Amino acid sequence: MPLHTPICDLFGIEHPVLLAPMAGVSGGALAAAVSRAGGLGLIGGGYGDADWLAREFDAAGDTRIGVGFITWSLARQPQLLDLVLDRAPAALMLSFGDFQPFLSKIWDAETKLVVQVQTLGQAREAVDTGVDAIVAQGTEAGGHGGTRATLPFVPAVVDIAKDIPVIAAGGIADGRGLAAALALGASGVLCGTGFFASDESLASDNAKQAILHGSGDNTERSSVFDIARGLDWPSDWNLRTMRNDFTHQWSENIGGLKQNLAEEQARFEAARNVDDTGIAPVIVGEAADLVRAIEPAQDALRRMIAQAEVHLRRISRLVEPNSKG
Amino acid sequence: MPLHTPICDLFGIEHPVLLAPMAGVSGGALAAAVSRAGGLGLIGGGYGDADWLAREFDAAGDTRIGVGFITWSLARQPQLLDLVLDRAPAALMLSFGDFQPFLSKIWDAETKLVVQVQTLGQAREAVDTGVDAIVAQGTEAGGHGGTRATLPFVPAVVDIAKDIPVIAAGGIADGRGLAAALALGASGVLCGTGFFASDESLASDNAKQAILHGSGDNTERSSVFDIARGLDWPSDWNLRTMRNDFTHQWSENIGGLKQNLAEEQARFEAARNVDDTGIAPVIVGEAADLVRAIEPAQDALRRMIAQAEVHLRRISRLVEPNSKG
Repeated sequence: MPLHTPICDLFGIEHPVLLAPMAGVSGGALAAAVSRAGGLGLIGGGYGDADWLAREFDAAGDTRIGVGFITWSLARQPQLLDLVLDRAPAALMLSFGDFQPFLSKIWDAETKLVVQVQTLGQAREAVDTGVDAIVAQGTEAGGHGGTRATLPFVPAVVDIAKDIPVIAAGGIADGRGLAAALALGASGVLCGTGFFASDESLASDNAKQAILHGSGDNTERSSVFDIARGLDWPSDWNLRTMRNDFTHQWSENIGGLKQNLAEEQARFEAARNVDDTGIAPVIVGEAADLVRAIEPAQDALRRMIAQAEVHLRRISRLVEPNSKG
Repeated sequence: MPLHTPICDLFGIEHPVLLAPMAGVSGGALAAAVSRAGGLGLIGGGYGDADWLAREFDAAGDTRIGVGFITWSLARQPQLLDLVLDRAPAALMLSFGDFQPFLSKIWDAETKLVVQVQTLGQAREAVDTGVDAIVAQGTEAGGHGGTRATLPFVPAVVDIAKDIPVIAAGGIADGRGLAAALALGASGVLCGTGFFASDESLASDNAKQAILHGSGDNTERSSVFDIARGLDWPSDWNLRTMRNDFTHQWSENIGGLKQNLAEEQARFEAARNVDDTGIAPVIVGEAADLVRAIEPAQDALRRMIAQAEVHLRRISRLVEPNSKG
């Protein structure tokens, strides 16, 4: 089986590709589509809506999927963990906060625990805890994240991870990124932006169009949308989105946004209701340049695998005995 | 010859590795050491000191080396271009500014022109101009740079570069990074941080110690040192360094630094004079985690090549017909 790595055995999957649990985007249909195509789909637990979670697990039907939570948000509604563990997820991913309080329940349920990290300090804690897999997330990722970049961060995490498989995240949306992640020592990849424009994605129509016509040159990390949404994210992480009128107006003037908060929140909510991506966020990463079609998730995944194989064969020839490059 | 790529032919070198022209660090001895080990060393033209350049070219002796300039600074002292073209450099690299005014002289001298870019817009201009090679630099690089990260930026540049070879820069300091860059479609790499602690590097003793004991978790981009040094860098680029007392004090308070400029500049200069890296900058990138010894540059380069070969062989087995991973 090509591209078989340790995470394929860990999760019982064919291809070493996980769907990032994008809040409001990675629902049951998208997660199931990625799993049926041989990867592992993770539903995005987001900010914790029990009805939404139940509905999306139902939407995935009998397909094996996992789920990811924003850890600091889960800490405010820990009962959601019981709800999802009852669904016997193929993996449970925690990111952005202290995962220790949730360990025993997850492992008692014999669920694989995946912890996403943005610093080497966080990676060391995950290694010492003995989690089942570590996602090393670079700042080029869409959505929330830290400051380290994927390419130098992944090998540094691999060097301290001992036997725990490392999954690369951030900036990977095609087979070249997958091949590069494997070269860095990762056991696979976790992709959000690459599936954002899938048919099965819950992203809005205009958001999908925005990524098709957007560029990684035109994304930035900022807190403006968290403030506008009333989300009190810890300052260690902020949100990468495409730039739009709202970021142009406020990302250099957070104080001004806070002073005009009620008015701006109303304007923001109105924009979201009519899918106006000039104001509402398009939450994607720098890999936007590599996303070129609205298509079934299975097509995106299959193309990624096929392209990775092509490029791995190409670079293999660079170390053949009589290589001429 | 293993790892032979188009830039090996372009520059007449054995290994697809270039030394980044780090200002004040990449002198003639380091550039020559990298070239003698089979890569291509580039002297750092920095902010333009004719005597320094002449001395460092002399220090490289008969070894073929190149040179890199900060383009906006070169524009203020264009006579330096004649000085270095008289030395028949193996390549001339321009970064951070408008390279168009220098094209005709460089090509009249039959010198290879390498242009470093930080956005796809800049890459398109370089492609349209038909430069000899493009360096796609990610934000994880030490020293000046932009906001794009190497892993998603390189394939996006490759996709528009047509037949022009692309060289990956930013975050690459070992053989895994080189292998990953080749997987992304780059024709080679440009490395600064990986050679910063070399014996031949002009970095100070304490700066070399700082990188050995430092981490990529502890670097940041900021303008504080440019302000302290009185350098009027365009706002498109800022400087990645290790964090220290000076960044902790001022990077979130640029206005305060400017208000106390004379005093802080005096303190800064005094610190530089005694190699106090608590205040003076250690200009390295996120790949600091991967730098573990003060050693001859040739040892660092040879280990990088050997490690890249090991990892390319490892991942080629993932696409062998009967691979079991």
